[in-house]
Amino acid sequence: VTMPDLAAQGHGDGPVATRDGLATLGPEALMLRQALDQRFLRWAAEVGADPYLYPPLMRIADLDRLDYFKNFPHLAMIGSNIASASAADLSESGTPNGVVPAEQLADAAFALPSAACYNVYLDLQGRQISQLHVVTTAATCFRREDNYDGLRRLLGFYMREIVFIGERELVLHQLRAFKEKIARYLGDIGLPAKVQAASDPFFDAGGARALMSQLFPVKEEFLVDGTLAIASVNFHRNFFGERCDLRTEDGSPAFTGCVAFGVDRWMSALWARFGTDARSLCDRVRGA
Amino acid sequence: VTMPDLAAQGHGDGPVATRDGLATLGPEALMLRQALDQRFLRWAAEVGADPYLYPPLMRIADLDRLDYFKNFPHLAMIGSNIASASAADLSESGTPNGVVPAEQLADAAFALPSAACYNVYLDLQGRQISQLHVVTTAATCFRREDNYDGLRRLLGFYMREIVFIGERELVLHQLRAFKEKIARYLGDIGLPAKVQAASDPFFDAGGARALMSQLFPVKEEFLVDGTLAIASVNFHRNFFGERCDLRTEDGSPAFTGCVAFGVDRWMSALWARFGTDARSLCDRVRGA
Repeated sequence: VTMPDLAAQGHGDGPVATRDGLATLGPEALMLRQALDQRFLRWAAEVGADPYLYPPLMRIADLDRLDYFKNFPHLAMIGSNIASASAADLSESGTPNGVVPAEQLADAAFALPSAACYNVYLDLQGRQISQLHVVTTAATCFRREDNYDGLRRLLGFYMREIVFIGERELVLHQLRAFKEKIARYLGDIGLPAKVQAASDPFFDAGGARALMSQLFPVKEEFLVDGTLAIASVNFHRNFFGERCDLRTEDGSPAFTGCVAFGVDRWMSALWARFGTDARSLCDRVRGA
Repeated sequence: VTMPDLAAQGHGDGPVATRDGLATLGPEALMLRQALDQRFLRWAAEVGADPYLYPPLMRIADLDRLDYFKNFPHLAMIGSNIASASAADLSESGTPNGVVPAEQLADAAFALPSAACYNVYLDLQGRQISQLHVVTTAATCFRREDNYDGLRRLLGFYMREIVFIGERELVLHQLRAFKEKIARYLGDIGLPAKVQAASDPFFDAGGARALMSQLFPVKEEFLVDGTLAIASVNFHRNFFGERCDLRTEDGSPAFTGCVAFGVDRWMSALWARFGTDARSLCDRVRGA
């Protein structure tokens, strides 16, 4: 298969085919994705972040501790399996209508990650943090939506995050510095964006709770073309510090914040503005 | 968190922590993983493979077409979601006992990949292949097992594949060449392995079917220490060609084969043999 074949399918997403919120990336898209990720990794290294890769499935019990299911039960992709008693049936008959019926599923202990950074706090739980701890991680994240829209809104998408844990002022200082760094970079590569305070788009208005504003009292997004959030800067106060028992040196719950890059959306924004020539786009992303 | 902390947890897997078949990789493990993947990508490039990244969820209907649920229903991780009627309940109460009860799940349309190459055949379906088509892809793959064992047997693991589709003799020629290339490389880096004919370890003996021998009539594994399969060379005859309507120029179903690298197992084997110094291991992997 060659990229022109995929592009000819008319998904309006440059050299990427999407269907039902799931994308297939070919060589040129992968080149650009890697150039972007390398850029974000360099920023992470500049602030001393160690790269980590966390499990691709999260425990329901862990997410529950973060009130995830109280707030976003409808968005979660759940990792279940076929109940033992039903496995034999399926083995005989295959799956009817392209689904595994709910009554053949077992109780589910796992969920697919909906954000990359939850695993950071869970992995560190019980730790005392001296001043500031910085980690970077990337994950394929999953959010069920009513509608998908090319690379702009996917069921499964690639998110790179840089995560700060520690003293309140040190976390806030890093978030402010990254806000400037991202704005400057977007100007340099010719992709102007507007910074806008936001509630997380995956917190739907109907499910709004007091807790959510506590969880994300500060979220600022970088919007391209007025609508597409390609990056965000988030301050969680000490919510994760409390829930995951992360303590600063004086024993109080640590503060946390993160910078998140929706890499698929960066690709979509770059293609829309500069065309799809992979080499020239990679030069642009690297050179700025 | 620092790597010695993780190593001190005594998982016997070098600088990696695993729990319930899920691994957390820190900076040193990620360096080695990348060096290995770059090596396999170079081999892929040498035979003209284009890199692709396929959706992180597969459609149940697609897997069913490959008889997946007839053969391996017990191994599948299923991607479901919380039924609308239950979302409100969970929103009130959270999840009991760390699980989402089966009766709160919706019919499932997705499964998590259990091998990286299925998506290649599905993506190409209906195509006519001229002579030989070569693709490389990597995926986090999932297989439910009764027992997990560090990086040696994981619920979620990283697999790199090089996939050949086309004329029978051209596919077989590539598989033979890779068998030699892998054996030579393992000798060069001082990681001796035995080649052994095998049934796929994820085809359990109890579920054996005539179809499986048709699906994998030829599978050879590279075993380290007599037990750990770190790579395999697989010939599927024309099974996927028939099921996915892949045709050669004379209109007959294409033949397919793949070379698969279990990257986590390579890391485990290298650490066991050479210790965990990341820089020296990366030199070894790159230099041979």
